[in-house]
Amino acid sequence: MKAAFGGATLMSSSSANAQTTNPYTYRRNWGRWGADDQKGAVNLITPAKRAAAAALVRSGRAVSVGRVFEPSQHYIRVNQRGAGSSAVDYYGFEYHGVTVTHVDAFVHMWDRDGMWNGRDPAKEVDTNGARFGDITAFGDGLITRGVLLDVPRYRNVPHVAIGRPVTGAELEAIAKAQNVNVEPGDALLVYSGRESFVKEAGRYGGVTEPRPGLDSSCARFIRDRDVAVLAWDMHDAVPDTSGHPFPAHAVLYSYGVALIDNSLLEPLARACAEERRYEFMFMALPLKIARGTGSPANPIAML
Amino acid sequence: MKAAFGGATLMSSSSANAQTTNPYTYRRNWGRWGADDQKGAVNLITPAKRAAAAALVRSGRAVSVGRVFEPSQHYIRVNQRGAGSSAVDYYGFEYHGVTVTHVDAFVHMWDRDGMWNGRDPAKEVDTNGARFGDITAFGDGLITRGVLLDVPRYRNVPHVAIGRPVTGAELEAIAKAQNVNVEPGDALLVYSGRESFVKEAGRYGGVTEPRPGLDSSCARFIRDRDVAVLAWDMHDAVPDTSGHPFPAHAVLYSYGVALIDNSLLEPLARACAEERRYEFMFMALPLKIARGTGSPANPIAML
Amino acid sequence: MKAAFGGATLMSSSSANAQTTNPYTYRRNWGRWGADDQKGAVNLITPAKRAAAAALVRSGRAVSVGRVFEPSQHYIRVNQRGAGSSAVDYYGFEYHGVTVTHVDAFVHMWDRDGMWNGRDPAKEVDTNGARFGDITAFGDGLITRGVLLDVPRYRNVPHVAIGRPVTGAELEAIAKAQNVNVEPGDALLVYSGRESFVKEAGRYGGVTEPRPGLDSSCARFIRDRDVAVLAWDMHDAVPDTSGHPFPAHAVLYSYGVALIDNSLLEPLARACAEERRYEFMFMALPLKIARGTGSPANPIAML
Amino acid sequence: MKAAFGGATLMSSSSANAQTTNPYTYRRNWGRWGADDQKGAVNLITPAKRAAAAALVRSGRAVSVGRVFEPSQHYIRVNQRGAGSSAVDYYGFEYHGVTVTHVDAFVHMWDRDGMWNGRDPAKEVDTNGARFGDITAFGDGLITRGVLLDVPRYRNVPHVAIGRPVTGAELEAIAKAQNVNVEPGDALLVYSGRESFVKEAGRYGGVTEPRPGLDSSCARFIRDRDVAVLAWDMHDAVPDTSGHPFPAHAVLYSYGVALIDNSLLEPLARACAEERRYEFMFMALPLKIARGTGSPANPIAML
Repeated sequence: MKAAFGGATLMSSSSANAQTTNPYTYRRNWGRWGADDQKGAVNLITPAKRAAAAALVRSGRAVSVGRVFEPSQHYIRVNQRGAGSSAVDYYGFEYHGVTVTHVDAFVHMWDRDGMWNGRDPAKEVDTNGARFGDITAFGDGLITRGVLLDVPRYRNVPHVAIGRPVTGAELEAIAKAQNVNVEPGDALLVYSGRESFVKEAGRYGGVTEPRPGLDSSCARFIRDRDVAVLAWDMHDAVPDTSGHPFPAHAVLYSYGVALIDNSLLEPLARACAEERRYEFMFMALPLKIARGTGSPANPIAML
Repeated sequence: MKAAFGGATLMSSSSANAQTTNPYTYRRNWGRWGADDQKGAVNLITPAKRAAAAALVRSGRAVSVGRVFEPSQHYIRVNQRGAGSSAVDYYGFEYHGVTVTHVDAFVHMWDRDGMWNGRDPAKEVDTNGARFGDITAFGDGLITRGVLLDVPRYRNVPHVAIGRPVTGAELEAIAKAQNVNVEPGDALLVYSGRESFVKEAGRYGGVTEPRPGLDSSCARFIRDRDVAVLAWDMHDAVPDTSGHPFPAHAVLYSYGVALIDNSLLEPLARACAEERRYEFMFMALPLKIARGTGSPANPIAML
Repeated sequence: MKAAFGGATLMSSSSANAQTTNPYTYRRNWGRWGADDQKGAVNLITPAKRAAAAALVRSGRAVSVGRVFEPSQHYIRVNQRGAGSSAVDYYGFEYHGVTVTHVDAFVHMWDRDGMWNGRDPAKEVDTNGARFGDITAFGDGLITRGVLLDVPRYRNVPHVAIGRPVTGAELEAIAKAQNVNVEPGDALLVYSGRESFVKEAGRYGGVTEPRPGLDSSCARFIRDRDVAVLAWDMHDAVPDTSGHPFPAHAVLYSYGVALIDNSLLEPLARACAEERRYEFMFMALPLKIARGTGSPANPIAML
Repeated sequence: MKAAFGGATLMSSSSANAQTTNPYTYRRNWGRWGADDQKGAVNLITPAKRAAAAALVRSGRAVSVGRVFEPSQHYIRVNQRGAGSSAVDYYGFEYHGVTVTHVDAFVHMWDRDGMWNGRDPAKEVDTNGARFGDITAFGDGLITRGVLLDVPRYRNVPHVAIGRPVTGAELEAIAKAQNVNVEPGDALLVYSGRESFVKEAGRYGGVTEPRPGLDSSCARFIRDRDVAVLAWDMHDAVPDTSGHPFPAHAVLYSYGVALIDNSLLEPLARACAEERRYEFMFMALPLKIARGTGSPANPIAML
């Protein structure tokens, strides 16, 4: 049943629920910030929240959370002019997937229930781009308090292994062990030891093969803590017991949580361990690409 | 005459000077941070400098300094899968020029004297990219104290006009009038009223036609203040009395100052006037593109 | 009313006709070669037709009908290896429009009545490409007898002017004056003097402004002669009295005629006048691009 | 030693020969058609040669010699306008290598001796493209008599195997066995059974691994017969006994022979066997890309 909602067509969750096994009707955030909202939980990053994040800075040590990026198409042109010569380049790339550090816009993913805020992708997306929930919604940046949870350290293993996904209860326990709270509007950085896994396995794969990562129960933790941003180095564990595809990615469209995929977290985990701090100022400034489904990024954590 | 310098070939400035009218041999920074340095004046952004920048934050008001970006090639692909559907896109673009807000890497420009630190572009740049001074040199971000100088406000006009370029002495006077100092390692934001000019003139052009902007004397001010980053909305004034092409851009290769072209400064100028503050925390996080000559960006100023 | 037709959904022409002023229900070719046909009037180019075209060759003089092509993205990479060095390039481009000489696939255009053979574009085209009527349908080339009709010569003017479009009756008269028949399966080349027009007007435009070209009555001539390929240097005249958009382009989806837009015809018109021949062997070999809506091309006429 | 030659700098072959083991100084064609020639052996395709090729057509059976092409970047845009709707696409690709059927321009490859006609690539090629020997040199098409030599058939095996490269003496024998001559200006099509090899081996590789193909002695045959075009489905055998990289590709820059790599020859070989004819009309019409190093293509053989 389709019901009008705030001027846009909302795909009814009740009838859809009967069809899906979507675990994220639990405390779903649709409508929480208004029917036309495009910022989701990022609304929780208020000016005061940003100021408090800046106040966390002690030494000013900056650690990059972005991987080096090699666009598929990268070409140089040299304009020799004697004085005033220059080299310019062209970048062409797709960035979603398991390689490039990037920020997902809310429009990027949906399931049978719909997009973020119940919108119908058939109406909001076509070959000319996204009309709702594009990456410009984060045009003022994602600048907030960051908290890193170090899973391998907690487990005393080099990395999260296939078949032993990170769980919500585990994130709870790690925060406690690290003596740090996860608060509303935070950026949650979940370090799973991706580099170590790749060194062993050769690669981190797609969804068609078993891979290590986060379990669907992590989403409940994220929702219960009202996290605004999830930056992770692994993705959804495959398989997941919920039977739901992208069980952790679902926080994007169910809760309006900004996702930063393929984050580089090993150096930051090391810095946090050295400084014995797991909270810091976190900054991710995605490009303001009109109608875009996301943006590559180089986020920075500052201690 | 070519002399070896720190393992790399340095193009002699003395013989070159006889050939050019390059005004930037004045206090040129080549060698100042070592022969193989690729960070230039960005070296002045120490952890302490970054922490001090964070300490400037009061309200946490975030203002974007980046223009909305529409890549020349922008295509969407929708993967309909029932549950777990997604929209992904491809971006393809050149970004140097007068449209896209972007950060220049040091390799981007040179003249007869050479690249940053005296390097020979014929050796450091080829069709496979840049081997020295690429954009990854700023991989930890450009996070520092920002100071905005509002030229139209000072002149009591809507925008800087053709034939009346911004001068170094003027920047000096504006800082005084705004009661703000420009300090080593700062990001200097020079607002020239580009939007107003474009509304009147139709467009902001290239170097082959008269256009308003900054005069070569601004570079001296930038050098004397040891500015690390210049973010501007107009470019070099055309023509310039020095006879030198790109007389302001030259700070890139003569002083190792990071340039952020086509910044969006009107909203920030307005916010600064409202809050009566012209200093703030400034963040620009260029993409870490291997061998790249620069990166599009969405910098943020936080008050 | 939608009716099933040969396993695919056919959009009914009768109900649609009531809605449109489409003049091409006149002798429409839908279903003529079967419900699943993807070659349209190109079916009329039989092996015998091709052999007859080859038999037309006398001197072997080859004249290019393609414009020089400068892809929007064109980048070079040089791989220096001492022995075995190479230069390779990347081409990126859109090609439909008024600039590039290209062949349209049948999927390229449709109106309220539907695509070629009554197919529904909503079913046959999505972001992954075209599933029906793509350019590979012409994978064996468009090799046939070519006939050039020289309109400026007939009118004794340098080019076809705005407001004086080429008409079907005129094409009839030109063929007669040139003492040449237009036969089933032919490639019809209509020369309208585009270079001369552009020299005068500055450019040949899109559909939002008045421009010279072919009138909708030309389509009847094309249908009545069972032409298989239309190669033209101008496009549809704007405006057209039929009120129908793309009144000449409509031969693509109504009659299954292959279109070769932006052909270069001035040199061929000159050669034909010199040799006093208006029939020749014509060859256009579009690229076999899977799911593509067309292909750039360099067709050749051989006298 | 560099000597001036016809206004361009010629790299001396004599001094270079002392450095290389280039077997193609044998009857090298440099200067044969003038110092500034850019058409090489394609000059042998005269109008009379083309007319004679057309006269070979009997049934008009057309067989494609091009593989289906899937550009790396292929995106669709649908412009829904009610009447006059369209689907357009963007193609982006590199095409040199072992996958795409394409024509090499003379500028594409060189070794220590130089490019076609002794030109210096450092002068003729930069990031803005090729200034000499680009693909527009073939702007009137490559239309000539084609001769196919079927190697697997001659050897009574499914395909040419690794370690058993095709030799010049073998091509001689195959022509004799097939009762066909190879004549000046011809397009020589060498079928090596690539599809069969790939079915067995999984893929046809690059130059860094052993692969089946043509031996350097084939080049002598090509030169002695004054072949103008070589269309082949395999490439240079790896390794080659001459020690020269790309020993067969060298015909491009030593003899000015146009190369059509990755041709699809299995269907044509079958058609020739059926019709007991190994000569036919051959047409390849590369795109006229300004400054390009080559072009994808879909050549056609017509019997």
